Amino acid sequence: MSRRITPDEVQLDEAVFGPLTQSLRELIDVAIRSEAGGADALRAHELIKEATALLSARLDPKPFGVPSTGDGEYLPWGNVAMGLRNAIAPPLIIQRDDTDRFATDLVLGAAYEGPPGQVHGGMCALVLDHLLGATAHRPGAPAFTGTLTLRYVAPTPLGRLRAEAWIDREERGKTFAVGHMIDAQGVVTVQAEGVFIRPKVSA
Amino acid sequence: MSRRITPDEVQLDEAVFGPLTQSLRELIDVAIRSEAGGADALRAHELIKEATALLSARLDPKPFGVPSTGDGEYLPWGNVAMGLRNAIAPPLIIQRDDTDRFATDLVLGAAYEGPPGQVHGGMCALVLDHLLGATAHRPGAPAFTGTLTLRYVAPTPLGRLRAEAWIDREERGKTFAVGHMIDAQGVVTVQAEGVFIRPKVSA
Repeated sequence: MSRRITPDEVQLDEAVFGPLTQSLRELIDVAIRSEAGGADALRAHELIKEATALLSARLDPKPFGVPSTGDGEYLPWGNVAMGLRNAIAPPLIIQRDDTDRFATDLVLGAAYEGPPGQVHGGMCALVLDHLLGATAHRPGAPAFTGTLTLRYVAPTPLGRLRAEAWIDREERGKTFAVGHMIDAQGVVTVQAEGVFIRPKVSA
Repeated sequence: MSRRITPDEVQLDEAVFGPLTQSLRELIDVAIRSEAGGADALRAHELIKEATALLSARLDPKPFGVPSTGDGEYLPWGNVAMGLRNAIAPPLIIQRDDTDRFATDLVLGAAYEGPPGQVHGGMCALVLDHLLGATAHRPGAPAFTGTLTLRYVAPTPLGRLRAEAWIDREERGKTFAVGHMIDAQGVVTVQAEGVFIRPKVSA
């Protein structure tokens, strides 16, 4: 059950919680890379707890869910891949060109690391899962991931990256989407294929 | 190139940056679920920027990398899946039983959401990629993910979850690891198979 969100709340999210979340992404990054001494780190910890207390004074008790504006628009602001209010999300901003290719340009820093200097393979999977899902999506006919296959063909360096996806074919209610991650030099690092299932609408 | 880390720095990380990061995980969660008004949210934003400035005063300019204690021990504290200092990481704590099955118990809240009330499929992929990789790992002979295949067989609800993995077979330098995600009721929601490649050590 989606909770309703009012136009005022939408504006507050875009004007206030969006920028707050962007600052929180920086804080996550520096909490990893900081070489601060104990006193500064302890003080920073206190500030984090103070901010948490302020934001917790009024709190949705449920997992966030996807709020609806009530006019058919859904706002996935807690989404771990693209949420305006989710500091874990890079966030992905997906663009569609006139040939129906979908793409997202992103910069992944220290917070997304797996092997030294490289993006975690599971993070590449998250990005590609989300992008392929968006590619398979049709308004009013949501597609669910059936299977996702990832081939890791080269290391994915931290830094500037691009993911691309498109529909390969459709067969008997299944949509086959394919895509890849490419590094700043244009090298394909991960290839993905997803099979998406569109539940039949019952008559 | 791994940077060296001293015993004093290890202690600081465990005693100070670990708890700071845990508080940061709570802040990420409440930043999504908060229904605070504009004034409180703006004040919380200021506190976040203050904490960021304190931690940034001395900052490793590179992506974090995996520091080494210099005696062969590596500390993946920036790792996006298991890092002590990475607030994105749940973090995964992996246990191995005496039959060589690997498992991790975890609680995924609002910050890991995809569809309403459910864990993002890509987040399940990240957890399983990491766990299967740990299962395939041998000290001194690292394994790289070749392919990872995920079958989404049921929705994964937010909340308490368990992921398990084990080695299915080894063939000509390839290790086949399999595993799954199960929900609090014991239902398998995602099945995974990973093929891991162990580079030959040249003579």
